[in-house]
Amino acid sequence: MKKRSEMQLALQMVSGYGAEFSAWRMPGTDPAAYTNMDSYVERAKLAEQGKFQMIFIADTPALSNNLGPQTPMFPMDPMLALMAVARETQHIGLVATLSTTFNYPYNIARQFKALDVISHGRVGWNAVTTSDPLAAANFGARVENRQERYDKAHESIQIVQALWGSWEPDAWTLDVEVGEFADMDKIQPINLQGQYYASRGPLPIPPSEQGQPVIFQAGGGGEGLELAGKYASGVYANPYDITSALEHRQAIRQSAARFGRNPNDIKMFAGFMFSLASTEEEALDRRKQLMSFNPQEIPSRVSYLGSMVGLPLSVNSVDIDQPLAADLLKNAYANPMDPRSPRALKLLKEGLSVRDVLAHGVINYHPVVAGTPTQVADFLEEWFLAEACDGFSVVPDVSFDGVADFVNQVVPILQERGLFHKEYEGKTLRENMGVPYEYGLQEHGINE
Amino acid sequence: MKKRSEMQLALQMVSGYGAEFSAWRMPGTDPAAYTNMDSYVERAKLAEQGKFQMIFIADTPALSNNLGPQTPMFPMDPMLALMAVARETQHIGLVATLSTTFNYPYNIARQFKALDVISHGRVGWNAVTTSDPLAAANFGARVENRQERYDKAHESIQIVQALWGSWEPDAWTLDVEVGEFADMDKIQPINLQGQYYASRGPLPIPPSEQGQPVIFQAGGGGEGLELAGKYASGVYANPYDITSALEHRQAIRQSAARFGRNPNDIKMFAGFMFSLASTEEEALDRRKQLMSFNPQEIPSRVSYLGSMVGLPLSVNSVDIDQPLAADLLKNAYANPMDPRSPRALKLLKEGLSVRDVLAHGVINYHPVVAGTPTQVADFLEEWFLAEACDGFSVVPDVSFDGVADFVNQVVPILQERGLFHKEYEGKTLRENMGVPYEYGLQEHGINE
Repeated sequence: MKKRSEMQLALQMVSGYGAEFSAWRMPGTDPAAYTNMDSYVERAKLAEQGKFQMIFIADTPALSNNLGPQTPMFPMDPMLALMAVARETQHIGLVATLSTTFNYPYNIARQFKALDVISHGRVGWNAVTTSDPLAAANFGARVENRQERYDKAHESIQIVQALWGSWEPDAWTLDVEVGEFADMDKIQPINLQGQYYASRGPLPIPPSEQGQPVIFQAGGGGEGLELAGKYASGVYANPYDITSALEHRQAIRQSAARFGRNPNDIKMFAGFMFSLASTEEEALDRRKQLMSFNPQEIPSRVSYLGSMVGLPLSVNSVDIDQPLAADLLKNAYANPMDPRSPRALKLLKEGLSVRDVLAHGVINYHPVVAGTPTQVADFLEEWFLAEACDGFSVVPDVSFDGVADFVNQVVPILQERGLFHKEYEGKTLRENMGVPYEYGLQEHGINE
Repeated sequence: MKKRSEMQLALQMVSGYGAEFSAWRMPGTDPAAYTNMDSYVERAKLAEQGKFQMIFIADTPALSNNLGPQTPMFPMDPMLALMAVARETQHIGLVATLSTTFNYPYNIARQFKALDVISHGRVGWNAVTTSDPLAAANFGARVENRQERYDKAHESIQIVQALWGSWEPDAWTLDVEVGEFADMDKIQPINLQGQYYASRGPLPIPPSEQGQPVIFQAGGGGEGLELAGKYASGVYANPYDITSALEHRQAIRQSAARFGRNPNDIKMFAGFMFSLASTEEEALDRRKQLMSFNPQEIPSRVSYLGSMVGLPLSVNSVDIDQPLAADLLKNAYANPMDPRSPRALKLLKEGLSVRDVLAHGVINYHPVVAGTPTQVADFLEEWFLAEACDGFSVVPDVSFDGVADFVNQVVPILQERGLFHKEYEGKTLRENMGVPYEYGLQEHGINE
């Protein structure tokens, strides 16, 4: 079992390039990585060398961004990418998002369980609801209200779990002599009928080495916490600072306890981005190079930074390669609605240029460390020892070299400090996450 | 382009074992092949060595048979199996069935197109309707009537095709210098709205080397012929004799012509099973060994054979290891409703034992040749030269050695006779099938 003093790492793989939409233009990157499964397989192999617990591929079934200067936000198909990786790795976990809103539970259950069996028990399903109107339109559907989406999600997860458990663990007898492939008395319909979904079953798939795939959850709010507490063994969260991470982790653990589960059986992964170099200055130069690929976005980034610190900044009113003037800065304040604001203000007050402050990633979706391997390791250690999370969902700026650099330069420091394992604890994702065996529908009731 | 004098071959892969449900018990076979993608990959590589145009994986989303003595009829998941094969082959086509009844068109379009792009244009979709009540129940659905299923199928195929074509062929500019990943003016919504399905699009996937996947059709009746004539470039058919094959092929070609298409642009593959050995006697012994694994099925097979020739046969009334007595046989006649009956009667009259007649496969779903490589090649030549089909969907009795034997022993004879190509004609499935490039929704109108 995993020791409490060790963090877990998930490599978040987006569309094959990395977190930055301009990563596809970095020298060395295959510009067509989006359609080349090597981009997933090679990075997953590196992550496995680095003993990452899992790769994680997020998904929304829609083209949600402008492909002019940017690469797609999501993979062509997450399950096919995981299948490619499964054939060419042995240990690393394989997790993908699939929407509970726009997939039949039978199809979800079938494809995840098949991959779990094929990979000998390394698969996880990030069960999310979909509110993106572009995605809804792809299915000829209206956008459902939040309650409806979550009601559907509960039905979906329960049917999927029940289908996963529709063979008793010892049903697959495979007795060549006697001629019994399986014991059909131990393979039974599930006959679940909900308001939105129903399924008879059974699924034509035997148990995997970990029983069934691990369930992950992402997304906040009371409904999200309930889903996590009731079903998830892993949560992908996006806190920006230690305080909000601690709060979210506590809320998840309380939700698990409320449903009669051990809070240690649910692991929270905090999203985290990095840009590595041998000095902080070089790391910032790398990020400035990435920014330079999309000069047309700089004006809006400057304005956005201004809104975070209460100043009407624009590329017309300030020289972004200089620090802000003292008489402007004296009116600045950290926007209390944005947890990223204090850091932005601090860096501006240290006298960094506007471009350098942006290069530090202060307006990015996840916290960003641009710096040396030691600086990255320090950041991860601080969060982890503060118990702000159980691990990290790590996104490199540019996958092409970022994954190798993290594995070769950051992982050894974490291992040296006793913060990260040196070998996989077991063979399955459940074993490597230190979460309990589960099989079939998990009937967690409210415990109060 | 393919010459008219050359047949095409599809290797039909069932659940990893072969056509016979007892194949999993044959010495040499991996009894757990169902869950081991090697069983698909290794056979597909052999088929590629033998220059097969494609592998084909049939599917129904249900556990439709008794897993006591039998293996499952269908794969754990056809798309994951094809993905595994795609990574480890270069030329062979990759075709799978996916139900138009129980999948959202967006999800069908996405997964097939992604695989088509990943495999550099080698994918085909066998678009079928699903009437199996067990499958319907897995989706909480009632069994739809035939008209409704086919109306849905038309909508599904049209939306899928339109999504496949939602990028103009030159939309993916990938201009690293300028920083244009794609030309968004050339990626547009499709906004199709049917009675059962609708989708906005676009799909976030560029064209493949063959534009988009090849559409296949299976299943008969007027509705099936209309679907084939309107959309399909390939048809999987199950005629039992040359006469019915000729009729079906003519009907398909007429349907294509009716929709304004060249009848040569639609290729019919006849299902065909074989058991190979160096003598016919050894081939029959092989089939008798397979039969012996399921002795409990012999009584019903004997009765069934009797019904084909108008005799009340039972294991209690005849010795199945002897020829039928002359005074019994004189009352026999070929059941006119069953095209397999004349052959069954002929073999009985030749004095074969009941067991040997059954071993010849006279009651099997597809025509069966149990014999030498030359006998198998003779059968294929006779059908092909009679223009009963454009090719064959070949199912070995036992995949473990049957595929290798066919490739090593039958293919060279066909090539020697000028009946089968010696090298792939092109790089894509369309090129290797000799069917035209298609991209986007194919608006074939009735031509009368």
